[in-house]
Amino acid sequence: MEHNREFEIDGNSNPIQISRLALDIGGSLIKLVYFSRNSGDDEDPPKDKVGVSNGVNGRLHFAKFETAKINDCLEFISANKLFLGGGFQHQENCTNDRRFIKATGGGAYKFSELFKEKLDISLEKEDEMDCLVMGANFLLKAANQEAFTYLNGQKEFVQIDHNDLYPYLLVNIGSGVSMIKVDGDGKYERVSGTSVGGGTFWGLGKLLTKCQSFDELLELSHQGNNRAIDTLVGDIYGGMDYSKVGLSSTTIASSFGKAISDNKELEDYKPEDISRSLLRMISNNIGQISYLNALRFGLKRIFFGGFFIRGHSYTMDTIAVAVHFWSKGEAKAMFLRHEGFLGALGAFMSYESPSLDNLVVNQMVPLPVNASLVTDTNSDTLKGDLNGTESIQCSIYRA
Amino acid sequence: MEHNREFEIDGNSNPIQISRLALDIGGSLIKLVYFSRNSGDDEDPPKDKVGVSNGVNGRLHFAKFETAKINDCLEFISANKLFLGGGFQHQENCTNDRRFIKATGGGAYKFSELFKEKLDISLEKEDEMDCLVMGANFLLKAANQEAFTYLNGQKEFVQIDHNDLYPYLLVNIGSGVSMIKVDGDGKYERVSGTSVGGGTFWGLGKLLTKCQSFDELLELSHQGNNRAIDTLVGDIYGGMDYSKVGLSSTTIASSFGKAISDNKELEDYKPEDISRSLLRMISNNIGQISYLNALRFGLKRIFFGGFFIRGHSYTMDTIAVAVHFWSKGEAKAMFLRHEGFLGALGAFMSYESPSLDNLVVNQMVPLPVNASLVTDTNSDTLKGDLNGTESIQCSIYRA
Repeated sequence: MEHNREFEIDGNSNPIQISRLALDIGGSLIKLVYFSRNSGDDEDPPKDKVGVSNGVNGRLHFAKFETAKINDCLEFISANKLFLGGGFQHQENCTNDRRFIKATGGGAYKFSELFKEKLDISLEKEDEMDCLVMGANFLLKAANQEAFTYLNGQKEFVQIDHNDLYPYLLVNIGSGVSMIKVDGDGKYERVSGTSVGGGTFWGLGKLLTKCQSFDELLELSHQGNNRAIDTLVGDIYGGMDYSKVGLSSTTIASSFGKAISDNKELEDYKPEDISRSLLRMISNNIGQISYLNALRFGLKRIFFGGFFIRGHSYTMDTIAVAVHFWSKGEAKAMFLRHEGFLGALGAFMSYESPSLDNLVVNQMVPLPVNASLVTDTNSDTLKGDLNGTESIQCSIYRA
Repeated sequence: MEHNREFEIDGNSNPIQISRLALDIGGSLIKLVYFSRNSGDDEDPPKDKVGVSNGVNGRLHFAKFETAKINDCLEFISANKLFLGGGFQHQENCTNDRRFIKATGGGAYKFSELFKEKLDISLEKEDEMDCLVMGANFLLKAANQEAFTYLNGQKEFVQIDHNDLYPYLLVNIGSGVSMIKVDGDGKYERVSGTSVGGGTFWGLGKLLTKCQSFDELLELSHQGNNRAIDTLVGDIYGGMDYSKVGLSSTTIASSFGKAISDNKELEDYKPEDISRSLLRMISNNIGQISYLNALRFGLKRIFFGGFFIRGHSYTMDTIAVAVHFWSKGEAKAMFLRHEGFLGALGAFMSYESPSLDNLVVNQMVPLPVNASLVTDTNSDTLKGDLNGTESIQCSIYRA
């Protein structure tokens, strides 16, 4: 196997060197985080006078694959030799011919044999909740412009006071939803969750609309109108509000309730409307259960992560409105720019070195929207979808 | 119009007299409650020495129609002259040629004109939450063997101490779900709700399975297995528990999550399995949100009512297990035998007389399962579905 293989990102002619890879293998998606050294840096990082490395500058990259297409992911890792590392390779990655990569999520257990068989890599398993919390804490403390609120279509970045971060509620919306009360580094409790999550949106959506991908389904919801299929308070009350208990005529009384009385078949409903109703039902439900849990522990801030959100404005809007509505404005929904990669980032940081403390983020460097890795191998094998994600400019120090 | 028309119930040769009708017209169902005098009683109830009636013995009857088939309901009322009353007819029902019946639910507004036009009846509207609470309080205080717990397939009736009834959480699961904190007679607050209710089960179920009725869908769920389509924790974790956070391998991680990765179309899934997954998703979600609200206000008892439940064992089991699971055994789910008729009962009791206090329930008298009203008119017009409901033997006193 070749070491120190050089890659190019997005046709940029400066060669970069990939090192360190971590995985989060969930029920629907595999998330990858890996580090690339800046091309200008020496292969061996400079050491200070007591022999400690002064660090390597580079970028953190983010990629994802569908878990159902795990073979694409294996090819991607193999073709790009992501597991080998570049100039920042560590002994423990290659001891006694045993290569390993850090991995979290249920799939780290389920696909352990597959990685061994196909790539001769051991997956070193890290606890899923540990990783989520580690990733979230890292981003909230280290990255600028990471957390933002979303109200009335407006994204507003929130300056996080590092001394006033805890406690908060972390809601990770993957296939299912985990709700975690975070009290500090490594101090947390999974207090709740719901099975009505991203997998429900996509699963029900696929059955109801024949959409072939999550993104297609999400895109559809843009053009939809949930009133076509949800029963609103006004539909029951002859167009009126039920104002005595604070329900306006446009409040959804029953999700998908109109399907009962309409003399229609599935084919008679527009897929756009179905997608919109589903999205609203699930986002609203998550927002409500999250708020009730935040209330229970007196938490004012709720951070939403996980790949369900995908920076999708209507999703964020519905969650934010649900939290605002149920809390009567007391609690605030916040979103994370690297929402989908909390677990993978946590796994990345669980390598003995670098630890959370010696991964220093310098700045966020957005990649072009269509950025993808290009190597000298056939680019068909490279299906890592970097769309819409951003790399982070950062430095890694040896412990 | 004929007054004091006599009817026979279920071929029983004793004629009975119908009086007093109240309606609860919801998004999916119309619920009727009406009183019939026992045949042996005098037409005019005996009066005591100060001219106050000593009461009339009879039965409360329960019937329901689909809101979408409201014309059947109008026919039923008309054919049986339910609005006229029997020997217990009151002046206010017939003043200035204006007949009215008490009605609650959004449909009391929406269908007001229709009742006027077709039956020349005014609907006197009563607030929906007022009626739900009145109906629940009445049943919990007046009826024996009304509330029961459901655990491990066992129904257990609960003796309610009238002095220790309040506060409790009333969860009414109709098309949508209302959660009401009840502190006493007429003292309550609607604290929460969710749009994921009976209308969602039925609406989504109709689209996904082509079932033609709610009961058919519910029946189907009996034979289903939700593992065919839900992603369980074990599916993600390669068959293992995620025991660190207390999730067993059989916990549902993502409702409908398997539909993502299975290479299947809607037609490839068994309707039974779809129905079971839907039922479990919705029941579990309602149980969870109910518990979180009970917790918020320190309520130990949660009574579930509304037509979604229909005495269906798996539904009750899922709700009870959800409340037990989330509350770690602290809170208890209880069900009501007349679950679907709380609002209609409340509307019935909102007639000036009888009030809650002078409606005395003597005992519960189960009707035969297939009991239906039979008159001398064509029985095709009588579609009041009394299946599985029970009449209540009771006395009504004039105030």
